[in-house]
Amino acid sequence: MFLKDMRMAYLLDFYEDALDKHTANVIKAYYNDDLSLAEIAADIGISRQGIRHLVKKGEEQLEFYESKFGLVKRHEELMGACESLNQLLDKIKNNPDFKDESKRLSEVIAIIMKGKDN
Amino acid sequence: MFLKDMRMAYLLDFYEDALDKHTANVIKAYYNDDLSLAEIAADIGISRQGIRHLVKKGEEQLEFYESKFGLVKRHEELMGACESLNQLLDKIKNNPDFKDESKRLSEVIAIIMKGKDN
Repeated sequence: MFLKDMRMAYLLDFYEDALDKHTANVIKAYYNDDLSLAEIAADIGISRQGIRHLVKKGEEQLEFYESKFGLVKRHEELMGACESLNQLLDKIKNNPDFKDESKRLSEVIAIIMKGKDN
Repeated sequence: MFLKDMRMAYLLDFYEDALDKHTANVIKAYYNDDLSLAEIAADIGISRQGIRHLVKKGEEQLEFYESKFGLVKRHEELMGACESLNQLLDKIKNNPDFKDESKRLSEVIAIIMKGKDN
C-alpha cells in the first residue's frame, strides 16, 4: 500500500461514519478494495467522472475532519504513550509491592488502546 | 450552569471548529455568555426566530459529531485513566529504582491530559 493510501485507510477508519453512505462506499471501494474508477463506475452505474468526483469529495471531507479533530494524530500520540506504559508494566508486573497497580495499569492501557472503537 | 448547558459547553469545546462561524458565534453567545435569544437577535440584527433556528441547528450538529466521534465520552475515559496513572506516579516518584520511569510517566500523563488542544 502506498503511503497516501495508508493515510486514507487511517482517515476512513476514524471518520467513515461521518461521510454519507454513498461517498463512503465509493471511497472504500477505491482505497480499501483497490478497485479502479472504471470498475466502480461499472458496478454502480454512474460515469467514471462521477466516481472521480465522489472520491475527491470524500478525500476532502476526511481531510477536513482531520484538520478539525486530529483523531489520527491523537491516536498516534496515544499509541506512543501506551508503549511507555507497557514498558513500565513489564517492570512492575512481577513485583508483589505493585500487585494492585499492575492490574490497574493493564486496565488503563486497554482503555487507551481501544481508541475509537468505544 | 444547568447540566444541559454543561454538556453543550463540553460539546462546543470539542467541536466548535467544525461549525460554521455564524452558527458557532450564536450558540456560544447563547450557552457560554448566557445571552437570551432576544438579546442575540438585537445584537446580530436578525429575528428572534432566526436565532432560535440557528441555536437548534448548532445543537443538532454538535450532537451529530459526538454521535460519530464520541470525543467527549472518550475524554472522560482518558481523564479516569490519568487519575490512576497519577496515583501510580505518586507511588514511584520518590523511588530511585524508578527515576527514568517516573519522568516518562509524567510525560505520558501530560500527553493524555492535553486532550484536544494539540
